[in-house]
Amino acid sequence: MLFSQLLETLKLGDAILKEYKINDDPNINEGASIEKAIENQISFLEKGSYLTNKLEETKASALLLPNDEMLIKQATQLKFSWAIFEDPRLAFAETLDLLNPKLSPYIGVHKTAVIGENVILGEDVSIGANVFIGNNSKIGSKSIIHPGVVIYEKVKIGKNNELHSNCVIHSKSILRDNCIVHANAVIGSEGFGFVPTKKGWRKMPQTGSVVIEQDVEIGCSTTIDRPAVGETRIGAGTKIDNLVQVGHGVHIGKGCAMASQVGIAGGAKIGNGVILAGQVGIANRVKVGDNVIASSKCGITKDVPSGTVVSGFPAIPNKLWLRCYASFKKLPELVKSIQEMKPKKAT
Amino acid sequence: MLFSQLLETLKLGDAILKEYKINDDPNINEGASIEKAIENQISFLEKGSYLTNKLEETKASALLLPNDEMLIKQATQLKFSWAIFEDPRLAFAETLDLLNPKLSPYIGVHKTAVIGENVILGEDVSIGANVFIGNNSKIGSKSIIHPGVVIYEKVKIGKNNELHSNCVIHSKSILRDNCIVHANAVIGSEGFGFVPTKKGWRKMPQTGSVVIEQDVEIGCSTTIDRPAVGETRIGAGTKIDNLVQVGHGVHIGKGCAMASQVGIAGGAKIGNGVILAGQVGIANRVKVGDNVIASSKCGITKDVPSGTVVSGFPAIPNKLWLRCYASFKKLPELVKSIQEMKPKKAT
Amino acid sequence: MLFSQLLETLKLGDAILKEYKINDDPNINEGASIEKAIENQISFLEKGSYLTNKLEETKASALLLPNDEMLIKQATQLKFSWAIFEDPRLAFAETLDLLNPKLSPYIGVHKTAVIGENVILGEDVSIGANVFIGNNSKIGSKSIIHPGVVIYEKVKIGKNNELHSNCVIHSKSILRDNCIVHANAVIGSEGFGFVPTKKGWRKMPQTGSVVIEQDVEIGCSTTIDRPAVGETRIGAGTKIDNLVQVGHGVHIGKGCAMASQVGIAGGAKIGNGVILAGQVGIANRVKVGDNVIASSKCGITKDVPSGTVVSGFPAIPNKLWLRCYASFKKLPELVKSIQEMKPKKAT
Repeated sequence: MLFSQLLETLKLGDAILKEYKINDDPNINEGASIEKAIENQISFLEKGSYLTNKLEETKASALLLPNDEMLIKQATQLKFSWAIFEDPRLAFAETLDLLNPKLSPYIGVHKTAVIGENVILGEDVSIGANVFIGNNSKIGSKSIIHPGVVIYEKVKIGKNNELHSNCVIHSKSILRDNCIVHANAVIGSEGFGFVPTKKGWRKMPQTGSVVIEQDVEIGCSTTIDRPAVGETRIGAGTKIDNLVQVGHGVHIGKGCAMASQVGIAGGAKIGNGVILAGQVGIANRVKVGDNVIASSKCGITKDVPSGTVVSGFPAIPNKLWLRCYASFKKLPELVKSIQEMKPKKAT
Repeated sequence: MLFSQLLETLKLGDAILKEYKINDDPNINEGASIEKAIENQISFLEKGSYLTNKLEETKASALLLPNDEMLIKQATQLKFSWAIFEDPRLAFAETLDLLNPKLSPYIGVHKTAVIGENVILGEDVSIGANVFIGNNSKIGSKSIIHPGVVIYEKVKIGKNNELHSNCVIHSKSILRDNCIVHANAVIGSEGFGFVPTKKGWRKMPQTGSVVIEQDVEIGCSTTIDRPAVGETRIGAGTKIDNLVQVGHGVHIGKGCAMASQVGIAGGAKIGNGVILAGQVGIANRVKVGDNVIASSKCGITKDVPSGTVVSGFPAIPNKLWLRCYASFKKLPELVKSIQEMKPKKAT
Repeated sequence: MLFSQLLETLKLGDAILKEYKINDDPNINEGASIEKAIENQISFLEKGSYLTNKLEETKASALLLPNDEMLIKQATQLKFSWAIFEDPRLAFAETLDLLNPKLSPYIGVHKTAVIGENVILGEDVSIGANVFIGNNSKIGSKSIIHPGVVIYEKVKIGKNNELHSNCVIHSKSILRDNCIVHANAVIGSEGFGFVPTKKGWRKMPQTGSVVIEQDVEIGCSTTIDRPAVGETRIGAGTKIDNLVQVGHGVHIGKGCAMASQVGIAGGAKIGNGVILAGQVGIANRVKVGDNVIASSKCGITKDVPSGTVVSGFPAIPNKLWLRCYASFKKLPELVKSIQEMKPKKAT
């Protein structure tokens, strides 16, 4: 695709084009990082990026740049083709989509797929090899079910979803539209609920279900349990990374992001716009307010008010934690100071 | 099911019925939490539950209650149908089972299942679509193998087990009776054992096997490795949540409960009745005594005597840890106090 | 196999045989730990092992021993058949391989496997039941693909690899030779990359790929993501345990070992010979030098120079951390001391 053609399409997108300069209209085949780019590749820079000093060395044929006078001047002198965007990262995302059109990998239903009774398949669905779909389930139009996926009974999957290979969707789960479920994820599995009795742990039947709203992404090998009664719910636009545990009855709001290996225990309520970094844990029934940010490995054991940034275990406000940790590293000195100050016993 | 019919069956169960009152014998279709219940649903309350104040507002048609005079009086005034149980949570579990009878989803062996040579299938097994069972394996009667499960060679699976979709059981693994293995779990995989040599890591062959005793539950995407020699063993009645790692040669006792994302390194010995909260780690070859409780995210690096509660990393007794952590949060002040106390140098 | 025959073969291996004594040339069927060994089993001891005191009680028929005069004398008196090796653990590994020859479980391509267009299969491949291989992929000679594995399009798998059941290999992934991918692992999945916009998280297309060099092992349910552009790379001879997350664009060097539940965030660069213990986390774009050792549960948030041992969160040098932690446990006393030292206010 010529750079000029690319720009024509990007003008219609969400990353606002401000200004551009085309030198010999290069052919653009692929995106690349500014450090690794070669001829016919396009790259991007953000304002204040630690990579801006790579502009001189890059072999990229075209650049998506932020509105930064210095960079524009430099790019012009170096005779790059360039374009200024309000959000160059977003422009790069749109570029990658244009350069890599997504093909539906299978057309129709593969002959080895096993489709149960009373299953409703929407128009233009792609059902891969060895897929199993249980009785009374429904797959919305344009949804892609990759090979080896298992969908139990009475599952409702909306339009334009993509389910990657070997993921498992349990009975009565609901996925709305435009969701991606990655390979080996499990949705709607039985919550970890047991009643302690004299004879040992007695299973609490898990009769609830899981609801995944639109535009949600569920990472590889992530597990989302259903509750004893009621539902587990993931809000619209929330993105969940790999190997995350979402316990039974958890409610997650809209537009959240949860990094890999986060664990959310049963009954927790997570607000909208919450960001949980890697390996964060959240205890049973805790309430996390809107727009909370929890830094990596922290453990939230009690309610966190909206808009706060928390760290450590048990989690405390991030700024306090940073000061506590700075002192923690000086503990040996501290102990020494105290011992020196102690009044010595007469010998 | 009428409430009166439900009570007749519950009388035969383990939750001891003390007293009851039926008002217009409502039809009960489903269980629900007291906050969310609607007509024709049944709910429960426990002694001292934070939900007891919801009794006035609930729309539930019937209630399972603890032996609490106040609650009984209130429920009677509000004209609920109610029943008093010694353990209302257990009564609720039994109720959910009665309202949601488990149906065997497939009858016999699905035509797409691939069954190896010399495989022995018990009576009334259900083998789903695209299941693979390796040579010389054995599936006990009434066991349900959901679609996509892979069972390697020489596996012995007892009676009345349920293996959810896409889980993998490796060669020579043994599962006794009444176990549940959730979706995408892996049992009997090769332990992580290597010999450091001048040429790099040399694989230690993992020739042992895994034994899962009766009434065990293994969570989604949980992995249980086999050892180089000998066995990894999970004791009867132990319940393991999702995404848990059980290393090679680990022995876990009876009646334990392990929450999500727990990791147990090779050769650790865990006693009976041990409870490990979420994201707990246990180091190689450590011995954890009976009835130990480890709080979330703690890391056990050396032996823990029976009956203790431990926290933190490295784990220490919970009470000590709580006091240490309380002080940790005050470290910045502490440092300031010390600096103030230091004799000032003459200027 | 007679002990004498076993020794003849071990002479050709990497564990250097120093000396041996055969008593009645026992038949050796299996390996076992010295504590559990019974007749016709072989066991080993290492120098300084905590198990050397078990030599007197073991029922093993033969022993692989370190060059330790005391042990040799004792073994001779007890009339064991024994052999001294420079590295008895390595000798034991080689013995287990000899006693447990690996059989290719399937010959050729199972009739239920679904093979795409333009797929190239090397000589002597074993493709199990219900395997799916996408268009334009390539499987090298002698590779074993177990039942239920899904390989997307344009994947290149070298010689002599073993892919265990239900693992998923995404498009364009490259595996060189002699790798093992364990059950339910996912390689080449989409990295967790989103652009924050006014409309919410906008997916950054993940157009890169994953390269796994030779002799790598990938644990069960481990997930290795591909990046937006460029590659994620695992160096030759690196061994990765179960439930590990390797983020998009991560580069891991050669000969590393990563224990279970380690998480490595996007863009991190890990050197050669790095050892990460269980549940370690590494933050985005951090650089970890060669031969670094990170102890369990530690969190690396900034660059770590080669050859260091780090602990804690955020990770600091291990020795400092040990001293800090020793002080942490004394914090309550410390606080008391300080309070006692404070000048009392006049009452």
